Order: sequence, then C-alpha cells, then structure tokens
Amino acid sequence: MLAAWLDGLTGALVPVADRALHYGDAVFTTLRVHAGRACWLDAHMDRLRQACAGLHMPEFDWSLVRNEAEQASAYPSAAVVKVILSRGDGARGYDSRNSTGRRLVFAYAAAALDEEVYRRGVDLRCADLVLSDQPALAGLKHGNRLEQILARLECADPVSYDAVLSDSRGHAISATSANIFARFGNSVRTPGLTRSGVAGVARSRVLEALAGAVTVTDIPLDSLYRADELFLSNCVRGVVPVRQLGDHRYTETLTALGLMQALHPSLGLPVPG
Amino acid sequence: MLAAWLDGLTGALVPVADRALHYGDAVFTTLRVHAGRACWLDAHMDRLRQACAGLHMPEFDWSLVRNEAEQASAYPSAAVVKVILSRGDGARGYDSRNSTGRRLVFAYAAAALDEEVYRRGVDLRCADLVLSDQPALAGLKHGNRLEQILARLECADPVSYDAVLSDSRGHAISATSANIFARFGNSVRTPGLTRSGVAGVARSRVLEALAGAVTVTDIPLDSLYRADELFLSNCVRGVVPVRQLGDHRYTETLTALGLMQALHPSLGLPVPG
Repeated sequence: MLAAWLDGLTGALVPVADRALHYGDAVFTTLRVHAGRACWLDAHMDRLRQACAGLHMPEFDWSLVRNEAEQASAYPSAAVVKVILSRGDGARGYDSRNSTGRRLVFAYAAAALDEEVYRRGVDLRCADLVLSDQPALAGLKHGNRLEQILARLECADPVSYDAVLSDSRGHAISATSANIFARFGNSVRTPGLTRSGVAGVARSRVLEALAGAVTVTDIPLDSLYRADELFLSNCVRGVVPVRQLGDHRYTETLTALGLMQALHPSLGLPVPG
Repeated sequence: MLAAWLDGLTGALVPVADRALHYGDAVFTTLRVHAGRACWLDAHMDRLRQACAGLHMPEFDWSLVRNEAEQASAYPSAAVVKVILSRGDGARGYDSRNSTGRRLVFAYAAAALDEEVYRRGVDLRCADLVLSDQPALAGLKHGNRLEQILARLECADPVSYDAVLSDSRGHAISATSANIFARFGNSVRTPGLTRSGVAGVARSRVLEALAGAVTVTDIPLDSLYRADELFLSNCVRGVVPVRQLGDHRYTETLTALGLMQALHPSLGLPVPG
C-alpha cells in the first residue's frame, strides 16, 4: 500500500469501533489508475451508490468520495485505488442505526500482469467451495468476502491463477476476483448474478463492448469444458484469457483479443500483438 | 466501549491493511463478565479455536488470547468482553497467505436487560431476509455478518427486540444475535446449524442443562406459532423468554424459568422471582 486516507485525511489507522472491522459492514470498489487518472470512475461511483442503497448505508457525500478517489489516483506510482465505504463507528451489536459512515481510500502500486500472460492465458481450477445464494447481497461488492477467501485458499498450488466458483445448482458464477465469460461458437454467455456473485464494472464494459452479443444466462459448470473460449474480466487486470480449466485446455482467444484491443489501451494494460 | 487492546497493547486504532476491515476476514466471540471474571471462558476459547480452524486462520497463541480476555474482564465496570481474531495485515486481494493474525480485545460496559424483561419476555418479528446456506461457514462466529445487520434493520419498529431468521427451506434458524429454542409439550427443539446460523456458547449450555431433553432438528418457521414456549439463548443476555412472535402470544415460560435459575446466577443475570 502506498497511502491511505480516512475521511479525506492521510492516515494508516482506523478506529477500533469501525463496523467494517467487526462485521464486514461496508461496500467497496477497486479501480485501475492510468496516467494518474481513475479509469471508469463514473461506473465505480455508480456501483458504490448501488451497493450503499442495497445495504441501507448512511448517506455519503458523493462528491467527496469522487474527489478522494481522483486524488488517490494522482498519488505518485498509484496503479490501483480502492475505496471502502464503511458504515462507520457504532455501538456493539448488529443494530446499525446512528452510524455515520466512514470513507477509506487506498492507493496501491500493484502491478498488472505481464503481456505474456495476456497472450498465453491463465490456468484456473474449479473451487470446491460452493457459493451461497443471497439475493439481498448478490451483485453488490460488499465487505463480506469469506467465501472468496476460502476459495482462494484452494488455489495454493503454484499454477492456479484463480478458481471458478459455482452455486448450489452447479452453475458457474465467477472467479474469486473476476467475472467470467464463455464463448460457444458465435454465442458469448456470462452468468446472471441475482443470487450470488459480484456484478463487476469491467463485466459491464465487456457487455457494452460486445453490444448485445452476450447472453446473460445460467451456465452449468460442466458446460464450460465445451466452450470454445473462456475469459475473465476485472477492472484492475482487464480482460484475461483462460488457457486451462482443470485439465481442459482452450486454444481460442479470439473474443478476448478483440476485447483487449478495445478496452486495454484506456486502462494502460498490454494488448498482445 | 471502555477499552481495547491490539495484540495485547492498549489502543484505539487498527492498521488500515487489516483484513477484518477489508473482508470481514476474522472470527470473534462475545462473553459476559461477572465479578471481574470471564464467564464460560473455556467454551469461548473452544469456539474461537474451531472457527479459526474452519477458516484456516494463522496460528494464534491461545494462552495469550485467554490471558487478554481475562485481563479485559478485570477492567473496571466491564460487563461484556469481545475477542476478535483477525487474519491480520495482508496484501491487497483475497489471497491470504503470509498473514500473521491480529488479536483485538474489547471491554464494554453494556448492561443486561431489566429483570422485568426476563419475567415478561420479549417480542420478536419474523425477518424478511432469508439466511443463505453455506456449510463451510455454518455454525462459526465469523466476521461476515451483513445478513444479521440487514435483518436487524428490519427491527426498526419500537417493539421488536429481535427478528427470527429462517433459511430457504422455511426452517427457523435463530434470531440475529441469539439461538432459539421451542417447547412443544414436553419436547424442546432447537434448529440444527450445519447450513447456516451460529452455534452459540449459551446454546451449548442450554443443551447441557436440559441433558438430552432437547432435539436438534429442522423446525419449520410456521410451527413456532404452535409451540407452547419459545426462548432465546445468548452469552451476554442469558436465557430470554419470548412473549410474542409477530401476532402470536406465548403464555408459558416454564423451561426458560428453569434455565434462568440454573444458568443466570453464575452470569450475574436476573432470575425473575
């Protein structure tokens, strides 16, 4: 971490009564910085607002949140900015009335992947952990992420870049920190996220870029092995082709390549030549 | 909050990189203090150990955790002590390897309920929020508590003490911060907690006190209205009879009264005369 700001003030310490610390009672977003600017900031602001509404968070001053994200993006060598909106301090217990909110903004130097990785693709495994269904939280990027942490712990082997998570119906939902797309012939599909998963900002950009050519639908995990192409989307790493899922190897990266050409320049991410 | 300790040192501030703050990546327990001593401390230590094992947390020095809980309990006017074991600081992202853990101990002055409440019982509502099924987390008191927070927000009316949560099968699981028991004639039942819910330390004490007379089983939410008696268990508030669930009134408190007589003196909680 390069720097952190709490309610606009530089700081490295948070009051111990903060509800994000006690209960994960927060929402967040993580954005890419390119040339000192926050990429796709409007969309990140929208997703923070939606998540706050979904969790009945206190009102935030959105112009302050936006300004702070922009200032963090201008921090020397910032490559990633994370904004956490916590419900703030509160009394002990789940009752969250009278909380006034706290803005936490972080600048990180975290690097992108090598161009070679974008050319070659990454290897995924299927997580043993099954995502729970919670329509009240689905789609939102909130601060309760133990499922993703447990699934990521399954990737301790040296080759797995990430794990594909599925739900109790056996439908693929996402990777732990990316949305997933599968192409079958001319048809690109991505899972619906009304029961679990996070509707990523990069996912929206991919949907826009493919303009109506993507079907949001149930995708049985097994059917991923019959896809012609698989790729991930994430705001920090952009579009990442998948080379292998478990023992199955994919050889096509056509759609992912087109999306990298369309989206990566403005993110300052590599476009494999 | 009266006081807080971080890794044994008095403090009111936590480093901003703590994973409990970012992801709810933590476990916790909340215990009652009576006469300067932590009540049921062995059981609280056991539940912390179990939750840490379930989440593959870093190794904690359990004698330190225990000592710190005891010291916090001896703090002047402490009535409640909370212990959070966080995965500690880590790099950005869900990958939690190389985290070394952090102990957070809090002393609170939070009061018990009036004796009158133990005599009369409390009024509950049924939560609209449906608990998700997550066997990997069920039973554990972990730091992802947005479901409980959302359900508690439903209790904004002035009369609801808490809400009864059920799962997607329509089975009652618990209140937001207490386990639940229902007596039908001579048979006491409490929900199994293998898919959702938290297996409370007080719940174990009630199961022991009723020595084999309790059946752990599925309890359809609707069937609670046919119970002769309903009561809650929680380590801070002990056994609390339920007077009303929604529009349904309970008139019997026989089992709850016996449990209060058995358990409350050692907790320093009222026994209605």
